Amino acid sequence: MNDVTPILLKPPRSFELLDQTLLPGTERMLAIATLEAACEAIATLRVRGAPLLGIMAAATMALAAQGTDCSEEALGAAEAQISAVRPTAVELATRAREATTVAKAAGPNVANRQAALWAFAARLIAERKAEDEAMASLGAALLEPGTSVLTHCNTGALATGGIGTAFGVIRRAWENGSLRHCYATETRPLLQGARLTMWELARVGIPASLLPDTAAASLLASGRVQAVITGADRIAANGDTANKVGTYGLAAVAARHSVPFYIAAPTSTFDPGCPDAGAIPIEFRDAAEVGGFGQQRWSPDGMGCYNPAFDVTPADLISAIITERAVVRPPYAAAIRSLLST
Amino acid sequence: MNDVTPILLKPPRSFELLDQTLLPGTERMLAIATLEAACEAIATLRVRGAPLLGIMAAATMALAAQGTDCSEEALGAAEAQISAVRPTAVELATRAREATTVAKAAGPNVANRQAALWAFAARLIAERKAEDEAMASLGAALLEPGTSVLTHCNTGALATGGIGTAFGVIRRAWENGSLRHCYATETRPLLQGARLTMWELARVGIPASLLPDTAAASLLASGRVQAVITGADRIAANGDTANKVGTYGLAAVAARHSVPFYIAAPTSTFDPGCPDAGAIPIEFRDAAEVGGFGQQRWSPDGMGCYNPAFDVTPADLISAIITERAVVRPPYAAAIRSLLST
Repeated sequence: MNDVTPILLKPPRSFELLDQTLLPGTERMLAIATLEAACEAIATLRVRGAPLLGIMAAATMALAAQGTDCSEEALGAAEAQISAVRPTAVELATRAREATTVAKAAGPNVANRQAALWAFAARLIAERKAEDEAMASLGAALLEPGTSVLTHCNTGALATGGIGTAFGVIRRAWENGSLRHCYATETRPLLQGARLTMWELARVGIPASLLPDTAAASLLASGRVQAVITGADRIAANGDTANKVGTYGLAAVAARHSVPFYIAAPTSTFDPGCPDAGAIPIEFRDAAEVGGFGQQRWSPDGMGCYNPAFDVTPADLISAIITERAVVRPPYAAAIRSLLST
Repeated sequence: MNDVTPILLKPPRSFELLDQTLLPGTERMLAIATLEAACEAIATLRVRGAPLLGIMAAATMALAAQGTDCSEEALGAAEAQISAVRPTAVELATRAREATTVAKAAGPNVANRQAALWAFAARLIAERKAEDEAMASLGAALLEPGTSVLTHCNTGALATGGIGTAFGVIRRAWENGSLRHCYATETRPLLQGARLTMWELARVGIPASLLPDTAAASLLASGRVQAVITGADRIAANGDTANKVGTYGLAAVAARHSVPFYIAAPTSTFDPGCPDAGAIPIEFRDAAEVGGFGQQRWSPDGMGCYNPAFDVTPADLISAIITERAVVRPPYAAAIRSLLST
């Protein structure tokens, strides 16, 4: 399990990505040597998962800086290009911007700036592993012995490079003996739950069941699960949380059945400049994702679609937000301000 | 559109089914000449949709009675076998039992009993068309001009043999000029929305968008739809309604956003002997349906699954139930008793 390496830095001219669109059938590392190839991999979800996208942004900045003068203009252009690929995922923009800051802090020498960018990407990977461990311990402590959980999308090693956010909490609870069973939604349209989470659960040996997204409400009503845990892509200052489409529906139904709904996400996911749900941009994706999967088509050609990549869960449906620093509880506005000032 | 013929009687020895598992790619009529072939077609969902399953039960009883003495024992055995294939779908059991009653009422002569069974199946088809028309008119009158609706699964000609239940309401509203747009969930795991409803919507020419089941909550929150309309597989005496898995989640989220949630179903869907949700048996289906679609597999082998075919929407989430006789509104227990006594 710990040998899952979703990104591998090869300074100074490239890095490798585990192509997640091929899992679970094929494990293939993809060499990335240009800014364009990196942006293509982000757009087509060969690499996905909010924290891993942050690492990807840093690695891509390091790659883009090779062969340039590392001027403010050159760095700013790369930063803008990377951030624009998936506008809802705040970590792309945040980490690209941080990379620019790190490069400039290394002084005017071009080679120093380039080295600082690679070092920044490596540091993010190390931090991710440490923060995932801290989040896992804080989150697992919230789960009573005998708990079965429901999770959505993929938030494991494939999403972060560490042991994962929500998945890390689930894994730590399993190691502690408090987890009974993990239910995973398949997460249409791209099936990250069916393809990636089920693969990671099997590798760790956690007893697990896959469900169609349509069955989640019935599962919550049945009393089979005692907690829902997901990751997050962006958390507003008031606690409203953007995550993989489908999360909001789970939270709404969990609340009806008094099942606690937890978010696990590093503090870098918070966007204090974003006051609430209304200010979170939502990415809409292509109809081709909905009319089939991979090469298989099952819908009539040329149809319309409604295919947002994310939805927003209002803060009042969230029982707690698990971060690497602390577990944040309502009222969120004050708790988040306090968290981010520590 | 009216030329969609999901079942075609060929008395005295067979009938033909449109194999719905092959749509929208292939339109193939399948000849059914034995009770076993009929049960296989029901189990594998070559034929589906609550009202059409009622017709299927009657046609299968007619088929099974050929070559027997049409005794109470022979009819009872066929009835038991048909009813057991999909225990949640009340129309299978109801129509098979009615067929037995009709056969016995034809007197002791075997040929008369056999002819009465075929006539009963033909009568159900004619009634279905008439009742769908009545339901469509009553339901369409509930929708204000400019309404966009969300529907789930398939409830059109393919599900009933008429113009459909929920789909009939949507179609009539479109013909009346009051419908703006129809959103259809893809309806995992068997994708009846993506494959069948989108195909029927395109044939009628209704502007439509397909969405992953995960996007329904976000759609309801967005204000884009003013009503949700689905069919039903079994309605208890208190109004609790079993329908395709995923319906309950739609109703729960619709209620949060004050979007009316309507059920459209013929009165034969009511089961007055079933007091409430707790008494409705739920069919669980195979893991193979969840781990992929058709021949394509995308999940690890040998995994567990949670795959109920239906869920139950509590009566308090249902704004009204549209039947061919009347629109039934809360409080349901009294209204349903009154409906069924007319």
